[in-house]
Amino acid sequence: MSEEGAPIAAPAVETSLRVRYAETDAQGVVYYANYLVWFEVGRVEYIRRQGISYADLEAQRLGIMIVEAQCRYYAPAFFDDLITIRTWIDEARRSSFRFRYQVRRGETLLAEGYTVQVMVDMERREPVPIPPALRQLFLGGESR
Amino acid sequence: MSEEGAPIAAPAVETSLRVRYAETDAQGVVYYANYLVWFEVGRVEYIRRQGISYADLEAQRLGIMIVEAQCRYYAPAFFDDLITIRTWIDEARRSSFRFRYQVRRGETLLAEGYTVQVMVDMERREPVPIPPALRQLFLGGESR
Amino acid sequence: MSEEGAPIAAPAVETSLRVRYAETDAQGVVYYANYLVWFEVGRVEYIRRQGISYADLEAQRLGIMIVEAQCRYYAPAFFDDLITIRTWIDEARRSSFRFRYQVRRGETLLAEGYTVQVMVDMERREPVPIPPALRQLFLGGESR
Amino acid sequence: MSEEGAPIAAPAVETSLRVRYAETDAQGVVYYANYLVWFEVGRVEYIRRQGISYADLEAQRLGIMIVEAQCRYYAPAFFDDLITIRTWIDEARRSSFRFRYQVRRGETLLAEGYTVQVMVDMERREPVPIPPALRQLFLGGESR
Repeated sequence: MSEEGAPIAAPAVETSLRVRYAETDAQGVVYYANYLVWFEVGRVEYIRRQGISYADLEAQRLGIMIVEAQCRYYAPAFFDDLITIRTWIDEARRSSFRFRYQVRRGETLLAEGYTVQVMVDMERREPVPIPPALRQLFLGGESR
Repeated sequence: MSEEGAPIAAPAVETSLRVRYAETDAQGVVYYANYLVWFEVGRVEYIRRQGISYADLEAQRLGIMIVEAQCRYYAPAFFDDLITIRTWIDEARRSSFRFRYQVRRGETLLAEGYTVQVMVDMERREPVPIPPALRQLFLGGESR
Repeated sequence: MSEEGAPIAAPAVETSLRVRYAETDAQGVVYYANYLVWFEVGRVEYIRRQGISYADLEAQRLGIMIVEAQCRYYAPAFFDDLITIRTWIDEARRSSFRFRYQVRRGETLLAEGYTVQVMVDMERREPVPIPPALRQLFLGGESR
Repeated sequence: MSEEGAPIAAPAVETSLRVRYAETDAQGVVYYANYLVWFEVGRVEYIRRQGISYADLEAQRLGIMIVEAQCRYYAPAFFDDLITIRTWIDEARRSSFRFRYQVRRGETLLAEGYTVQVMVDMERREPVPIPPALRQLFLGGESR
């Protein structure tokens, strides 16, 4: 999915959260779907740190639609664990880009995964090119 | 909240669901907030059986806003339990009405509670009188 | 539920969180059941600040079981809002105690509610008296 | 992940559900993580139809641990949609097996994905071979 080797220059962003009781299941560990919720927490923080707001996107009638998500689970997370989510963009195309995530408790890697997003016109729900200014901020590199 | 003793003639509606693993927590029982999700399942089914659709309401620019919710927990629910939710309206005023819920597994009453809703104009988010036709269907009795 | 006017001396505890996209619903606001999840976030932080850990409780084979929850909703919360939850204990009896919660965005009170908990023996799931040492820490006052 | 071409003879299982309001988000569609909850609904129904219960597994001290999940999203699901989840096993190894899922509304394919599970000893949390009797039921074919 890389764009002719376009370098992704923006650094990874880390954010932390406490495991909520609501996020655990009867096995005593965090329920597997909740890692995708945490990915979203990482993604939103990543976007905030790039100085982009969802309000800005909406003003341009742009939406971000998830088209694929994946997660590999290595070790369980437990209630009240302090979790760190590391988020970065590793690939970008004309309309789509991929976020990568690592979920850690201290030094232990608990899970990792990715989501693929498409930039869409919010009304027509159709893919549009990522605007150059946004692209530069988003990817931390040159727009092409 | 009763309206001059206006009788609520519509019968209770029952709907069933299986407890999902996602709904359990580390105590091995259903997490307490999920009963409010089940109340909503009962409420939606109640409305459907009265022949009212959310699309109808939206066409009239009417929305239903929850202003209060309460639940008492008597016994835990477990993964894969077959749960029955009994839903009825026990009180109605000019703009608001109250749903009551009972959550059972077989003969065992697990929880009961209520939600208070206000009929609002969706754009102004302000209370409006429940329309007579809707009121009649909704409450199963005479509009007053 | 007060115990002969036993004063509750422990101060309220405040904790903050960002509204997650996962917590919103199709009305564009936070889904009503999620306030009970936030109450839990406040409750866990309250307990942590009193220097009590769930691990301590478990070592004494004590569990905390919710028997009632209630919430009043005054104004909606939106995606990415910075929310403050204020938590305190306002009543205590032999085996049970009640948490109160206020949910704010800046100066705006969005919701408030309570949960009633019972201290139980984890194996028998039966109420037990709140141990004096715990009671003192918990309530911030004299054990009686 | 196929085992020397071991044919997976068990037929796909279909189960239906109504989209809950709690499952929608501020975009007015079902939040992406909830598809993994639906996958679980499909998986549990699949296991039930094979005549296997989680209680049976627990009696043998066997647990099923998810090690990978993936989902592709093709079209959004909306509140109150009637959704069908089609579930089958497409690959099996010594200790692990893969479920496949298709999520439809009528004839429209909304999403598809998979989860990879490992059979574990519940106490040691270590992989164990899928027991032959279970394997036969589970996969609907010969144990090897």
